[in-house]
Amino acid sequence: MNNVKEITISIIGMGRIGRVHYQNIIKMPHIHIKTICDLLADPSWLERYEVEQAVTNYEEVLRDSAIDAVLICTPTNLHPLMIKAAAEAGKAIFCEKPLGFDADAIMEAYDVVQTTGVDFAVGFNRRFDSNFDGIVNLRRDGKLGKPQILKITSRDPEPPTLDYVRRSGGLFMDMTIHDFDMARFITGQEISSVFATGSVLIDSEIGKAGDIDTAIVTLNYANGMVGVIDNSRQAVYGYDQRIELFGSEGMAKAGNVIDSTTQYTSANAVSSGTPMYFFLQRYQEAYANELRSFFEMMNNEHGSDCTYEDGIRAIRVAQAANKSLISGQLENVAAI
Amino acid sequence: MNNVKEITISIIGMGRIGRVHYQNIIKMPHIHIKTICDLLADPSWLERYEVEQAVTNYEEVLRDSAIDAVLICTPTNLHPLMIKAAAEAGKAIFCEKPLGFDADAIMEAYDVVQTTGVDFAVGFNRRFDSNFDGIVNLRRDGKLGKPQILKITSRDPEPPTLDYVRRSGGLFMDMTIHDFDMARFITGQEISSVFATGSVLIDSEIGKAGDIDTAIVTLNYANGMVGVIDNSRQAVYGYDQRIELFGSEGMAKAGNVIDSTTQYTSANAVSSGTPMYFFLQRYQEAYANELRSFFEMMNNEHGSDCTYEDGIRAIRVAQAANKSLISGQLENVAAI
Amino acid sequence: MNNVKEITISIIGMGRIGRVHYQNIIKMPHIHIKTICDLLADPSWLERYEVEQAVTNYEEVLRDSAIDAVLICTPTNLHPLMIKAAAEAGKAIFCEKPLGFDADAIMEAYDVVQTTGVDFAVGFNRRFDSNFDGIVNLRRDGKLGKPQILKITSRDPEPPTLDYVRRSGGLFMDMTIHDFDMARFITGQEISSVFATGSVLIDSEIGKAGDIDTAIVTLNYANGMVGVIDNSRQAVYGYDQRIELFGSEGMAKAGNVIDSTTQYTSANAVSSGTPMYFFLQRYQEAYANELRSFFEMMNNEHGSDCTYEDGIRAIRVAQAANKSLISGQLENVAAI
Amino acid sequence: MNNVKEITISIIGMGRIGRVHYQNIIKMPHIHIKTICDLLADPSWLERYEVEQAVTNYEEVLRDSAIDAVLICTPTNLHPLMIKAAAEAGKAIFCEKPLGFDADAIMEAYDVVQTTGVDFAVGFNRRFDSNFDGIVNLRRDGKLGKPQILKITSRDPEPPTLDYVRRSGGLFMDMTIHDFDMARFITGQEISSVFATGSVLIDSEIGKAGDIDTAIVTLNYANGMVGVIDNSRQAVYGYDQRIELFGSEGMAKAGNVIDSTTQYTSANAVSSGTPMYFFLQRYQEAYANELRSFFEMMNNEHGSDCTYEDGIRAIRVAQAANKSLISGQLENVAAI
Repeated sequence: MNNVKEITISIIGMGRIGRVHYQNIIKMPHIHIKTICDLLADPSWLERYEVEQAVTNYEEVLRDSAIDAVLICTPTNLHPLMIKAAAEAGKAIFCEKPLGFDADAIMEAYDVVQTTGVDFAVGFNRRFDSNFDGIVNLRRDGKLGKPQILKITSRDPEPPTLDYVRRSGGLFMDMTIHDFDMARFITGQEISSVFATGSVLIDSEIGKAGDIDTAIVTLNYANGMVGVIDNSRQAVYGYDQRIELFGSEGMAKAGNVIDSTTQYTSANAVSSGTPMYFFLQRYQEAYANELRSFFEMMNNEHGSDCTYEDGIRAIRVAQAANKSLISGQLENVAAI
Repeated sequence: MNNVKEITISIIGMGRIGRVHYQNIIKMPHIHIKTICDLLADPSWLERYEVEQAVTNYEEVLRDSAIDAVLICTPTNLHPLMIKAAAEAGKAIFCEKPLGFDADAIMEAYDVVQTTGVDFAVGFNRRFDSNFDGIVNLRRDGKLGKPQILKITSRDPEPPTLDYVRRSGGLFMDMTIHDFDMARFITGQEISSVFATGSVLIDSEIGKAGDIDTAIVTLNYANGMVGVIDNSRQAVYGYDQRIELFGSEGMAKAGNVIDSTTQYTSANAVSSGTPMYFFLQRYQEAYANELRSFFEMMNNEHGSDCTYEDGIRAIRVAQAANKSLISGQLENVAAI
Repeated sequence: MNNVKEITISIIGMGRIGRVHYQNIIKMPHIHIKTICDLLADPSWLERYEVEQAVTNYEEVLRDSAIDAVLICTPTNLHPLMIKAAAEAGKAIFCEKPLGFDADAIMEAYDVVQTTGVDFAVGFNRRFDSNFDGIVNLRRDGKLGKPQILKITSRDPEPPTLDYVRRSGGLFMDMTIHDFDMARFITGQEISSVFATGSVLIDSEIGKAGDIDTAIVTLNYANGMVGVIDNSRQAVYGYDQRIELFGSEGMAKAGNVIDSTTQYTSANAVSSGTPMYFFLQRYQEAYANELRSFFEMMNNEHGSDCTYEDGIRAIRVAQAANKSLISGQLENVAAI
Repeated sequence: MNNVKEITISIIGMGRIGRVHYQNIIKMPHIHIKTICDLLADPSWLERYEVEQAVTNYEEVLRDSAIDAVLICTPTNLHPLMIKAAAEAGKAIFCEKPLGFDADAIMEAYDVVQTTGVDFAVGFNRRFDSNFDGIVNLRRDGKLGKPQILKITSRDPEPPTLDYVRRSGGLFMDMTIHDFDMARFITGQEISSVFATGSVLIDSEIGKAGDIDTAIVTLNYANGMVGVIDNSRQAVYGYDQRIELFGSEGMAKAGNVIDSTTQYTSANAVSSGTPMYFFLQRYQEAYANELRSFFEMMNNEHGSDCTYEDGIRAIRVAQAANKSLISGQLENVAAI
């Protein structure tokens, strides 16, 4: 960041992801977290967090003219409402994924973001992982020729709570949404139709909650190329995050991050460490990078690296996948 | 092979795969190739091959009571006819994949094979690859827990001739048929329904010939687990053959075979060799192993490692995939 | 750190390594850098560093009763003098490697450290690298059986300046000293004799400066096991840091840290990234860990993880290596 | 082999390595094994081996004018005698390593080989391993720049019998002799002096037999580059054979050959197969390749790929290593 200006922000929603952003930002020069906002906030939070204010009402944040930007880290259903209000208040907005559940509310907020022209970014953190970005660089450099097949493996180390599952919007909207975004980002191409299959193999309670825990989604791109995502809510060996892009001139892959290079060779096997377990650890740098990119955008260094449209398109793919899961047939992805 | 008996055989069809089997068998003790049979055979072939006879009519082979077994390596459309005749002649039969194109003819030959009780094996060579077998061993040993997701990547180094494409029965029947068989073999489970998508990305002439060159096939298994196969007719880096089985307790993978361990580290990259290019090289041992297994079966050491039913089931999956490609929806796999 | 006390420190010597420690410490809770001390310090440094004081005279630091500990990061020849003075002032001492050049001065300071009983640690940062520590864990857990052969490869990405070379004490005292320490740490055994060979292959100016740039050192341990270190001042592909411990029951290795998992497969090669280039990046966590360990020692959580004796022993091995390089024969390592 | 002539040979000495060569040659076109010769041979051997004659006296072989070449696979002490006699009889000679124990006898046989001009090759099979050859190719192509450090790890899976140890000539002459040859072959440079250290860590009986079982040998080359070999008579995980050549522009490595690509990821580790255990398996192709090269030389396609001089030079290095082990100092390698 050259010729940086000082930026004052507020984090709205201090749950797990809000705290991740807090920890990353306090190490960043020129960025000041003036206010944190959370329904549970009380004065004692001023001891735990290095901020000026801890409030419970986000409108108080939006009224504060000293605040340049807000990070919206609240439950998904609140996103459109808060985006709209923050845009009307002229704040730059970083919103966690997904943009929301209600299609109308998402588009209504979109209109306001467009009209007001505020800086806006969605928190698809994986775009900012240097390993995956290496694939994009190889593609852009023409090393892969014409991309033909994309493969994404995305498996969590363990399922979320049933309570979370019930509020999550379902596997495709909660978990695969990241992969849908990456399927666009890695290839630079739009997805035209999808076919989804899924199963309940890990925990029958997830099925009773109306969701699946294992899935395969086939992607057809507008340019003819194809893709596939496989998901599981539980990989006992850790957070399994792999992407492969195959093209007419070569293949690029980004594998799992292993925390150690120590290797042990016994009489029976050569063995080494398993993939990192926690997503916060796996994408630690990506989480910092996405905020750096957001603040750079505010500093007019470049446009948004993950736009509102990107957020909508990922949701459109998730919606088509949900539809396909029920219909058992290929479903078109709706336009924005 | 203990207490081995001497086995006299004939190879019918001396095209590429017939010659592969010839080369493997002449190194095997106790197996004698008495006769080779090919429409193009002439007396000069006795100089090129170490056999007693080179004939053009397979019926001549079947009439020879000295011959215990035949290897049917002719074009696919001839398989059912020859299987039937060979079974009626009481010969043990090793037949190349796939069993045939015509469903009725395949079932008619099946009846005769069952009635006569002759030893029978289909040539799905990949079952006999020790790397893939390593996955099966891990599954059988319970190391993977309950299998949940199967992934097969199967890409040829270059497309066949257009003439071959036209006679091949299409990508699913010619190429993916191997993967359909492996999808059953690796998991030990039956496939209940499939969804297929495909594209022409490598050579538009393949499209004009009515085929596709790139495909993704989703598999639903009867027990709820899921699978996916991705195919390409052209991977510039070689013959790409990978299988991954993910389960509740772990994951097993078998990667590509690299011909060299030499690794070069320059100022720019750490680089090593590419996967083997030719399928005959990649599956060299598997081709020998499948014949060893066949001869062991004739020697009553074990049953068939790849039965007629296995051959039919792979075709059933291919047929469902072809149907899905057109219908754009999930298609059930027909019973035998 | 449980029941942590607040610790106030000073960094003496704000060259490259001093600044590394500064950056690590300012992120650590409960540790306050009150004063930085450097011959070049002036009041403007208070803007660059978040400290109370920037002084030029280390004695001023030692007189400040508020300061609990000093980090000695000055040129090597000053270490014994400052250790002695700091110990006499009752400060806990973290001293960069090596302890010094002058044998008498080193032992004189040692006496004072022993007499005063101040907390003391030497900065052999590689002991705190988690990959190498993985080898130690495997050894301690008995997974390797009886250790027999140690191999250390340690190559810098590029030679230091000639000016640095001249003041460095030579390759063995400057660079291999780390490997000598690791050769003790990894095995838990003492080195009894060494044989060293060396060559000038990278830059003849290094030879003219009386040093070598390439070396192989054979180690004989008191318990009969053997080891070997290979060094180069210039590996074009990055900072090459590998250790292998071979024992009667198995082998443990720790390889280079590669910054990316992105892999590219072209028609010609499978290629991936090179090892990290800079030692500060490669050992980033180790540098923070060694200070954490130091502060934990001050907090009475454990003893020194790298004692004065460790520092002396590494020097003794380096001295024997220097002697061997000249004599062309095996040289005993002197006792402390 | 173009315009190949038919070659008739005899194998003298049908111990382990003689039988390996027998198995490889019977698969080779145009090469006929007329006679096998072994002190223990009797007529029943004609049933076990596909040869015309099984004799006990090698002079009978040498008198047979139909025999073009002999493979000398007898105990080492007999090599010079037999080489001399075979050369005088005008036979092409392939002799197992090492050339002999007695320096005078080796040079006497050398004179006869030179005078008679018979085709001659020593059986340093590792030169014919494609992985190691990959390093040589990278060096010759200039990819490594100027070679600076050679590293060879060579560890057997288990010690030979004590009886064998006693007759072996010692570790350096029996086992490291291969590495000494590779140290010349890989670099294309001559070794000028060596330093050796060794220990008895595996079996004290080996020590009582006057030998060592663990060793490290430092190599100084005439051109200034350096090298190191580490040996063990027992690596529980298999036959450990690795070579690394480091140069001014890059590094080449050839690692162990793993028999399987199957990889298992559990909750605790990612594990794969161990290196091949038996040297006959590990160097299977190399053993066939070295004979192919020998027969090509007889067919005038190229000169010897492993000359008598190569055989002598490896012995000279082994002798210097033996001397160094006793003297504790660097020892010069004698000229031929």
